[in-house]
Amino acid sequence: MNQGLQFDDAGRLRHLLTIEGLSRQTILEILDTAESFISVGEREIKKIPLLRGKTVVNLFFESSTRTRTTFEIAAKRLSADVINLNVGASSTSKGETLLDTIRNLEAMHTDLFVVRHAESGAAHLIARHVPPHVRIINAGDGRHAHPTQGLLDMFTIRRHKGAFGKLKVAIVGDILHSRVARSQIQALKALGVAELRVVAPKTLLPVAVEKLGVRPCTRMEEGLDGVDVVMMLRLQRERMQGAHIPSEHEYFNLYGLTPAKLALAAKDAIVMHPGPMNRGLEIDSAVADGPQSVILPQVTYGIAVRMAVMALIMGGTPAIREPATRDPASRKPAERKKHQ
Amino acid sequence: MNQGLQFDDAGRLRHLLTIEGLSRQTILEILDTAESFISVGEREIKKIPLLRGKTVVNLFFESSTRTRTTFEIAAKRLSADVINLNVGASSTSKGETLLDTIRNLEAMHTDLFVVRHAESGAAHLIARHVPPHVRIINAGDGRHAHPTQGLLDMFTIRRHKGAFGKLKVAIVGDILHSRVARSQIQALKALGVAELRVVAPKTLLPVAVEKLGVRPCTRMEEGLDGVDVVMMLRLQRERMQGAHIPSEHEYFNLYGLTPAKLALAAKDAIVMHPGPMNRGLEIDSAVADGPQSVILPQVTYGIAVRMAVMALIMGGTPAIREPATRDPASRKPAERKKHQ
Amino acid sequence: MNQGLQFDDAGRLRHLLTIEGLSRQTILEILDTAESFISVGEREIKKIPLLRGKTVVNLFFESSTRTRTTFEIAAKRLSADVINLNVGASSTSKGETLLDTIRNLEAMHTDLFVVRHAESGAAHLIARHVPPHVRIINAGDGRHAHPTQGLLDMFTIRRHKGAFGKLKVAIVGDILHSRVARSQIQALKALGVAELRVVAPKTLLPVAVEKLGVRPCTRMEEGLDGVDVVMMLRLQRERMQGAHIPSEHEYFNLYGLTPAKLALAAKDAIVMHPGPMNRGLEIDSAVADGPQSVILPQVTYGIAVRMAVMALIMGGTPAIREPATRDPASRKPAERKKHQ
Repeated sequence: MNQGLQFDDAGRLRHLLTIEGLSRQTILEILDTAESFISVGEREIKKIPLLRGKTVVNLFFESSTRTRTTFEIAAKRLSADVINLNVGASSTSKGETLLDTIRNLEAMHTDLFVVRHAESGAAHLIARHVPPHVRIINAGDGRHAHPTQGLLDMFTIRRHKGAFGKLKVAIVGDILHSRVARSQIQALKALGVAELRVVAPKTLLPVAVEKLGVRPCTRMEEGLDGVDVVMMLRLQRERMQGAHIPSEHEYFNLYGLTPAKLALAAKDAIVMHPGPMNRGLEIDSAVADGPQSVILPQVTYGIAVRMAVMALIMGGTPAIREPATRDPASRKPAERKKHQ
Repeated sequence: MNQGLQFDDAGRLRHLLTIEGLSRQTILEILDTAESFISVGEREIKKIPLLRGKTVVNLFFESSTRTRTTFEIAAKRLSADVINLNVGASSTSKGETLLDTIRNLEAMHTDLFVVRHAESGAAHLIARHVPPHVRIINAGDGRHAHPTQGLLDMFTIRRHKGAFGKLKVAIVGDILHSRVARSQIQALKALGVAELRVVAPKTLLPVAVEKLGVRPCTRMEEGLDGVDVVMMLRLQRERMQGAHIPSEHEYFNLYGLTPAKLALAAKDAIVMHPGPMNRGLEIDSAVADGPQSVILPQVTYGIAVRMAVMALIMGGTPAIREPATRDPASRKPAERKKHQ
Repeated sequence: MNQGLQFDDAGRLRHLLTIEGLSRQTILEILDTAESFISVGEREIKKIPLLRGKTVVNLFFESSTRTRTTFEIAAKRLSADVINLNVGASSTSKGETLLDTIRNLEAMHTDLFVVRHAESGAAHLIARHVPPHVRIINAGDGRHAHPTQGLLDMFTIRRHKGAFGKLKVAIVGDILHSRVARSQIQALKALGVAELRVVAPKTLLPVAVEKLGVRPCTRMEEGLDGVDVVMMLRLQRERMQGAHIPSEHEYFNLYGLTPAKLALAAKDAIVMHPGPMNRGLEIDSAVADGPQSVILPQVTYGIAVRMAVMALIMGGTPAIREPATRDPASRKPAERKKHQ
């Protein structure tokens, strides 16, 4: 898909559809902006007026209460008005096309669509058809991308492990079907992680996955050995019915993250999961709730990262109005050093 | 039904239940007020504090995401708090009567109910039972009325075609079952349109429809000839099962608005549709997306018109506090001239 | 269940899970605070900034539009941001545990959970696991408790009948299964009502109900004789299928509150019902809509009482910051006299 779509003529981020094609610089700018929003969640009054009078539409063609809630909270903390639409049950059942729904909403002078859709490319399709003042955030499209998840994961890693250049990272689970994994891989490659492995049974690894610049491993012993970050994926229980996995029991034995398997990683490795977790399937509760888990901090950072993305693409932060930001090349590397 | 119900003792609009019984003066006042709200949707901060601290309840006994959204956006732009209730699935299933539901909500000191109901007269029934401080807007009741749709259509016509007195207008489609058509006919008659035709197969025309002051046509050739405004109606696909229409294919052939049929109308005729559209059934995409279509502007105006109605019946606009407005007769015709 | 859970180390109310264990002093403080919020609902601008920037989550595992609406309105009048979650249909269906859902929401820096759940003890379970800054209000858990309903009932009685010490009160209906009845009994006992009767067929009375300090009656003649307050309960129609009640008709004959039966009570007795009512089953419309009914005022007070509880547990009212309040013993009895 066309990544150019997410930038305006001046090279500024206009939509967030995918991490593919985002420069290291852009990703770091989002993380820095998120850093400045972390404190908002800790204040007495968790609200800033950045998006006051803007209308954010949560346009969920596929229902996900959790993801919808994170965007709703992020938008409300920025003082936007939020409209929640579960479109599955309404207009589309009246035979209206996706684009008619979008055109109608934009005719209402709404400003930002947060789109989740079961089909890959839905957010891109919408972005191609909206007028210049409307912004799109992809909140997950089919197996394609879930960029805010990828970004909040980068935020988490930077906060807990520092510079990306020295890190070994393993992504474990259903790589083949996961939009989260795709976004994570793209972000980690852009940020120049030292080593990136994907760990799964062969049936859950994409063909020729090495071409993405990752090292495929079919055994946890190999995959987790010495890594600094273990990123678990959620296993869709539906996969069990197919030929992908023999049984839940066997999957847990081979790929479930237990304290014993985690011991293969670096001593201070962190454990991540995008949630919701299948405890006892892809992850053991002893690990999920253990001292190396940063799963709940991920959720906290997720609000700040979504606030940052909304603020940046809506042009509401000082950061993107600065001349320095419009021309990243002129920014001194020293300014960034502390975070990488 | 009793139209007096929607005015208070001083003759001011208290509820909006139907366009029947509204004077030309009142309709124009609503359109003028809407005109002043158009700019709100184009501002950086799309919010005015007119209904701050008021509680608007979207009380939808029949689900309609699109209509609910327009009222939600309109109310939030006026700074009201909005409560969305899909009542079909809740209280009524607990055996509570419609009026108990209403009484409970008004006991919570809510201010305005936007009511949609599958039965004709539901909004009137509610209006008859609420205390003086509670306001009702009918957002569609059975086959009876959909007055805000009718008003936004008038707004659209005035914006694009100017004075009503010179216009020939055709309403095309399922006149028999359409609450939209009823509201449109009432509004167009009140505003003194030059000629009003209704175009449909005989099975979809009300008996003795001429009594409404319209000219019934069963052929598009006759119905569209030289008209300035073509108002298409949505065809409920459910009608297909009945004896009303032979087949989708034949309906489109006879009554679907194609470029060829549109060519029968005046060269600068506009095309309207209340949405959601059945493309390829009542309207061809070439027309829906063509240069004569004002279907998306209708949606935009719909927000401003709903803001205007809310503001007027809540007594929040300077307009209705002016002595001149309470006594329309004292207003000079010259003041209105520019819009008609 | 552990009532200590709802207080912090300084003895201040932190959660509202049950009325059990609340002192007369604490209950009266809530009622006094609610008294100060009554006027907010009557203002032009029904909004105070007490919870501005706070996030209130309506976490309904069991759907109840009416109860959810009261909390949503109360929270919005306090200027909080409100997130509505019907959890039944979402996360839990993805196999996430109750506590994972809670932990995720609190990681988003939400402040207050309003919890409704079909299982007794759910709100307590959650309260045991949240960090100190998170507050819980039980909005009904199984057959266990519905404390805000109990409190608004006390508010209603005090407003209409004055001092509790002289009152005879009857609770009528399905005592056995009713969380409302439990909360009412606990509140009325704490406030030292003169006499408390529970009236129901034997099959709907708990075993050894006398131990709660109430007088069980199986006949309305005995139960209503000379009482000042008649508190009706909603009868779940589902009970009809069981062996609990012979038939709707017979139940109405024996226990339905008709004008004739109400005549047994004191002449100025008030009639209460938590809603939604089954008219013609547990209550006759002539009584429900009659001059002794305070059923709609209950709804109005419910908003003020919920605002009071939210404000108190969030630490936002001057009342609980006063030294006098932290040490109730130092408060002069005279201050309270007027209300009891």
